[in-house]
Amino acid sequence: MPDAVHVPPPAAALLDRFERVRARTLALAEPLSAEDMAVQSMPDASPVKWHLAHTTWFFETFLLLPHAGAAPVDPAYGYLFNSYYEAAGPRHARPKRGLLTRPSLADVLDYRSRVDGAMRRWLAGTQQAPEVLALLELGLNHEEQHQELILTDLKHLLSENPLKPAYAAPAAAEGKAPALSWHPHPGGLAEIGHAGPGFAFDNEGPRHRVWLEPFELASRPVTAGEYLEFVLDGGYRDPRHWLSDGWAAVQAQGWAAPAYWREEGGRWLVFTLSGERPLAPDAPACHLSHYEADAYARWAGCRLPTEAEWETVAAPLWRQVGQALHPPPAAGFPAGVWEWTASAYLPYPRFRPAEGAVGEYNGKFMSGQMVLRGASCATPAGHSRPTYRNFFPPGARWQVSGLRLARDA
Amino acid sequence: MPDAVHVPPPAAALLDRFERVRARTLALAEPLSAEDMAVQSMPDASPVKWHLAHTTWFFETFLLLPHAGAAPVDPAYGYLFNSYYEAAGPRHARPKRGLLTRPSLADVLDYRSRVDGAMRRWLAGTQQAPEVLALLELGLNHEEQHQELILTDLKHLLSENPLKPAYAAPAAAEGKAPALSWHPHPGGLAEIGHAGPGFAFDNEGPRHRVWLEPFELASRPVTAGEYLEFVLDGGYRDPRHWLSDGWAAVQAQGWAAPAYWREEGGRWLVFTLSGERPLAPDAPACHLSHYEADAYARWAGCRLPTEAEWETVAAPLWRQVGQALHPPPAAGFPAGVWEWTASAYLPYPRFRPAEGAVGEYNGKFMSGQMVLRGASCATPAGHSRPTYRNFFPPGARWQVSGLRLARDA
Amino acid sequence: MPDAVHVPPPAAALLDRFERVRARTLALAEPLSAEDMAVQSMPDASPVKWHLAHTTWFFETFLLLPHAGAAPVDPAYGYLFNSYYEAAGPRHARPKRGLLTRPSLADVLDYRSRVDGAMRRWLAGTQQAPEVLALLELGLNHEEQHQELILTDLKHLLSENPLKPAYAAPAAAEGKAPALSWHPHPGGLAEIGHAGPGFAFDNEGPRHRVWLEPFELASRPVTAGEYLEFVLDGGYRDPRHWLSDGWAAVQAQGWAAPAYWREEGGRWLVFTLSGERPLAPDAPACHLSHYEADAYARWAGCRLPTEAEWETVAAPLWRQVGQALHPPPAAGFPAGVWEWTASAYLPYPRFRPAEGAVGEYNGKFMSGQMVLRGASCATPAGHSRPTYRNFFPPGARWQVSGLRLARDA
Amino acid sequence: MPDAVHVPPPAAALLDRFERVRARTLALAEPLSAEDMAVQSMPDASPVKWHLAHTTWFFETFLLLPHAGAAPVDPAYGYLFNSYYEAAGPRHARPKRGLLTRPSLADVLDYRSRVDGAMRRWLAGTQQAPEVLALLELGLNHEEQHQELILTDLKHLLSENPLKPAYAAPAAAEGKAPALSWHPHPGGLAEIGHAGPGFAFDNEGPRHRVWLEPFELASRPVTAGEYLEFVLDGGYRDPRHWLSDGWAAVQAQGWAAPAYWREEGGRWLVFTLSGERPLAPDAPACHLSHYEADAYARWAGCRLPTEAEWETVAAPLWRQVGQALHPPPAAGFPAGVWEWTASAYLPYPRFRPAEGAVGEYNGKFMSGQMVLRGASCATPAGHSRPTYRNFFPPGARWQVSGLRLARDA
Repeated sequence: MPDAVHVPPPAAALLDRFERVRARTLALAEPLSAEDMAVQSMPDASPVKWHLAHTTWFFETFLLLPHAGAAPVDPAYGYLFNSYYEAAGPRHARPKRGLLTRPSLADVLDYRSRVDGAMRRWLAGTQQAPEVLALLELGLNHEEQHQELILTDLKHLLSENPLKPAYAAPAAAEGKAPALSWHPHPGGLAEIGHAGPGFAFDNEGPRHRVWLEPFELASRPVTAGEYLEFVLDGGYRDPRHWLSDGWAAVQAQGWAAPAYWREEGGRWLVFTLSGERPLAPDAPACHLSHYEADAYARWAGCRLPTEAEWETVAAPLWRQVGQALHPPPAAGFPAGVWEWTASAYLPYPRFRPAEGAVGEYNGKFMSGQMVLRGASCATPAGHSRPTYRNFFPPGARWQVSGLRLARDA
Repeated sequence: MPDAVHVPPPAAALLDRFERVRARTLALAEPLSAEDMAVQSMPDASPVKWHLAHTTWFFETFLLLPHAGAAPVDPAYGYLFNSYYEAAGPRHARPKRGLLTRPSLADVLDYRSRVDGAMRRWLAGTQQAPEVLALLELGLNHEEQHQELILTDLKHLLSENPLKPAYAAPAAAEGKAPALSWHPHPGGLAEIGHAGPGFAFDNEGPRHRVWLEPFELASRPVTAGEYLEFVLDGGYRDPRHWLSDGWAAVQAQGWAAPAYWREEGGRWLVFTLSGERPLAPDAPACHLSHYEADAYARWAGCRLPTEAEWETVAAPLWRQVGQALHPPPAAGFPAGVWEWTASAYLPYPRFRPAEGAVGEYNGKFMSGQMVLRGASCATPAGHSRPTYRNFFPPGARWQVSGLRLARDA
Repeated sequence: MPDAVHVPPPAAALLDRFERVRARTLALAEPLSAEDMAVQSMPDASPVKWHLAHTTWFFETFLLLPHAGAAPVDPAYGYLFNSYYEAAGPRHARPKRGLLTRPSLADVLDYRSRVDGAMRRWLAGTQQAPEVLALLELGLNHEEQHQELILTDLKHLLSENPLKPAYAAPAAAEGKAPALSWHPHPGGLAEIGHAGPGFAFDNEGPRHRVWLEPFELASRPVTAGEYLEFVLDGGYRDPRHWLSDGWAAVQAQGWAAPAYWREEGGRWLVFTLSGERPLAPDAPACHLSHYEADAYARWAGCRLPTEAEWETVAAPLWRQVGQALHPPPAAGFPAGVWEWTASAYLPYPRFRPAEGAVGEYNGKFMSGQMVLRGASCATPAGHSRPTYRNFFPPGARWQVSGLRLARDA
Repeated sequence: MPDAVHVPPPAAALLDRFERVRARTLALAEPLSAEDMAVQSMPDASPVKWHLAHTTWFFETFLLLPHAGAAPVDPAYGYLFNSYYEAAGPRHARPKRGLLTRPSLADVLDYRSRVDGAMRRWLAGTQQAPEVLALLELGLNHEEQHQELILTDLKHLLSENPLKPAYAAPAAAEGKAPALSWHPHPGGLAEIGHAGPGFAFDNEGPRHRVWLEPFELASRPVTAGEYLEFVLDGGYRDPRHWLSDGWAAVQAQGWAAPAYWREEGGRWLVFTLSGERPLAPDAPACHLSHYEADAYARWAGCRLPTEAEWETVAAPLWRQVGQALHPPPAAGFPAGVWEWTASAYLPYPRFRPAEGAVGEYNGKFMSGQMVLRGASCATPAGHSRPTYRNFFPPGARWQVSGLRLARDA
């Protein structure tokens, strides 16, 4: 949710952005069959068709119905495509999203089209209050989040298929990873969190002070080649590197390398959205759980940065080297990873969720999860920010998640 | 597997039947979308697309590859579409059949088409040994079994959808259930089991003698209206009616009525392949587990018949009243149910599985299951026989399973 | 439950037997500490203290309270020590029997003593109706069943202890196993089941006719040495030997040999009630599940006998060679095993459970279990009979269960 | 682990304290039978006997064996009584601690006695290096932690017994809870964490600065009577009060009130170590999960304090009112609760675990848990400190855990 101080862009600008965001979602789905989009590969992931419908439901439920006087396209969709908003009524169980062969993909595309039309008419026709435009802006950012999930959920689905199918052509080969250097910070009072003027989610604020001890932050994420050294050094067989919960996960899940890695005759293969390919040692290590990121850091004699450290030192670094926080979406995820931090996902001081159902957007998940910062190659361009707080449970591996090392100065 | 004595029909007749069976499978799939056919709603059920492919794999694996010198259409299909034949090599895990969005439905239809063409060419071209034709006949009966599973698995999938979609128009209303009468049998030595000349599965033989005590068998299955009396009498709340395992299932699963039944404001609704419809009291009760069939019988002061009793008295009854053992497939299952017996699914005396991989067809499942006799409205015409032994675990409810009462004379 | 025709022994004889049975239970518990008797090692097993109390509860509940006008020793015990009698009211959950550190062992021993005293006074004082004496006889047989469970449940508990403690001194070494021979039977009509005059459980009757095909039965159970050949031949790695459910159990449980067997440096060790000891090749193989017994028989080119075959041929064999059906209890189980049959545990024709709560004794368990015949070294002397039907689920391994081979003639 | 700067007390003082700590553990066990001490009621809890042995193992393993040249009392104990120290070798699985009926209670008491003797001789005889005395001090604090666990684990065990047995006489009735007032804090830089001179665990340091926003802290914990208002207001039925994980726990576990609370005919009963007793409205609410504490705070329009807020304002409060942080142990827990904070259990800046196996004491658990501050009536006198960090998973309810409200100023 935007801060109270944030003034959303004018309706015309938002409509323009609406068109682009909505079109990009369809473009992501374009290479897929109706079958690919119907299936759910695990409870954490959702079918692509469900993402297409849910992002549409968001605009219909929070804008068209209460503010544009619209009638629902189909009253059943309120039940089927509500993700987790208790205040928006009962809903279809998450692990059963993959059973919804009806409405068909065509029906869902029609739903999108009809909601898009209604949105256009409504935005063209009346003067909207700023708080309503703020909800529209939230809906666009919400859809961008689901664009990333479309890619990660799809990748998990395809990885379960023994045919190892490809979704897209491989990205052009990347160059060598730059040598690692360390960026020192002297410690002291810092300020973190969003303070405008642009959009931010409610969990990014309020901006506030934190005290930092002197530390150093690595100039780039850990590469797959560096992580492989940990694997080959027996990192997954030595409990001393691991948090207790992490070691339990290693044993219970039989982890021996990051998700999607596989060793065959001494050669390491990685499943990507371009199919299974040889491990690219200069790409950032990814599909790591927090446990693995933490264990690697301990093995390397370092630690994960806190989110305050990351925001203070890493975010400016990204800009310094000319990188935005949003590398272009690339199917195979060859570059750009979310970076696990040492920080639990908890409210900032004086955090207040938004009023109404969208108040459930972020706050109620502030338990049992760890913060990731940055952005990945699957993140839509322009979606992330230096203050952006991504979060997942420490055992999650299907996101494009890696790490950047920190150490005490 | 056919008995040794059974002489399979000539190749021309089998080819003709091949065309009809294969076409009927496609006809069953015709009203469905690719999405409907891709999804798996529970580990016990399979996607329709998988059924389409697996039945094709059977002909390719057991006939075309070893006997017609064919090359596999796609070597990966041997892994993907093997159901449970250990001797045919490793295979895709059953609960993950629903993750196979590739090969696409179009690919699978092409697979069917190419295998059908090869089968036609092979059957036209050479003289086949009787044991090879016997395998073809087995494959046709195998595909008919999957035709029934296509309907029951699909029904389960659609029932999980809050939209309660219909697959087919409802069947015409049936008349009243005939009054129940009892058919006595004096007991003594009887013979059961298949002895030719037609096709039968290996588990139906050898024909052998059994000793029967005097008993009586009901003239028709229990109707939904009769079963409703048990429900309304608190049958699902009184442990005295139930086997211990059945009572545990009632409590663990929260059963309060047969599968697909639902009470709303005093009215009983039943999910069918024509959508949710009012309970039809004169139709046979179905979607019962063995536990429920057994509990009903005990509540009614009766018992389930053994399969020997059923074969001796019920099978001829069906003929007597002009019913075949194979009512025409009807979407909503308004008539015709498999009838649970009191017999565990165990080998007949001197039972021998077939040689080779098809020996895994029946024998290895002779543990932990109960026999059902008869046929249901979902069974292909001509598929069942008086000696036919269907079998499912006692807790299974997604088949068209009901009961017929028996009592000691 | 006794047959209707069975006349129970006079009260004086039953009192004498009561004293002996009750004393033997205490003798079994004598080497154990209160701790040993309090703990439950798995849901299927019960603490020894619970067995001591439950067998006492049986006499109190079914005799003293309804027939002797007694007041309960402690009203709470009716809840705590009811095993599964729904008609006797609610009860403590089975998997939580091991949480009952109170009542203490001393309290339970006092309970036993007070019920014993009341039983003596009651039996001495009045004339009891035959149906009441029949309940007493049932209670004694019931306690004998629990004597066997005390040993098998205790063995499981001690086996979970890394100290591998011993309960009793090892039995004297046995001689060599006799050479295997085959006892033929020509087939035809046979009669099985109990017909008096002595006591039998309700599930052993009524006596009835069965038709047998010609077959042969082995002269003795399979020995541990013979079973070891199956293990060493890779029997646990080849799915062709196994029922489908059995193979699933092998993989899910990681079975590689019978329960309590362990290989160390090429030497096979077996946990016994005398601690861990070298495998005794001439002792009967035991602690086999039905799946393992069945797989061994298939590997050996044979099959398991039906219970009718066993009762017709094996029971007389036992007598012929001077063996009773009840070898003396021996701690380490060096001789005498229950023998899995190919028969599911189902009611005999015209079976009727007893009236009242004791009708739950056997009938409601006639689902999902297989019959074992014979007796084991843990069975109290005189407890078993040629018609005795023991039963356990096919995956159970903590009983003293082995097999005898059969084959078609 | 003590800070580097902390100088442990002299050996003579530690020996004196050793005698008192060890004696108090035995005193806690004194009212219990061997049966009570052998049983494990859930995987999170351990048998009292295991606590008696494990605390002894700590001294033997980390002091007597490496530093006093002692031989182990029993080599098997190293396997049986290691809790979680990977560096100390393999160990008995935690959920199976309750299966260890051997060694007997008498054996374990003998183990304690022999280790105590060796400790006395060793401490009397030689000059110990400060780092070794630091380990001794750690062992004493470790044993005090297990003293609290003995009470909480025992309470859980007894609560599972339908007899609702009492461990101790109820404490004398407490007075009225004081009226709630609010203690303001202006915010700014604060220092938290241990800095000597006394003992502290490694996770309490290093002392470091944190920035606080202005806030207020309640003068006392929430009482049972106050919490009951939340229950009666439907707090457990309204998802808006709950974190998402908390609401999932409410539904999955069927929570409707704190652990050990039960409503009967409108009257609220609470299971205590003095048996089941009427709810005492003026006692602090306890046996709350973090989720419940958080939900209550939200319902009350407040929030939980961070651990820095708590340490800055609440710890001095305790002193101010003359309370130590360690109310005397009282069986029924009538007063004194651990207070859940809003802080995840994570390392302080520059935290370093101790070298060697005791480095596993705290650090590896810094994942998935929340910090509790204060002390409870079950905490040994003198054990806690203002900097003390207790921690449990957010769903844990068997500890004496309550809450104190905070709010933004």
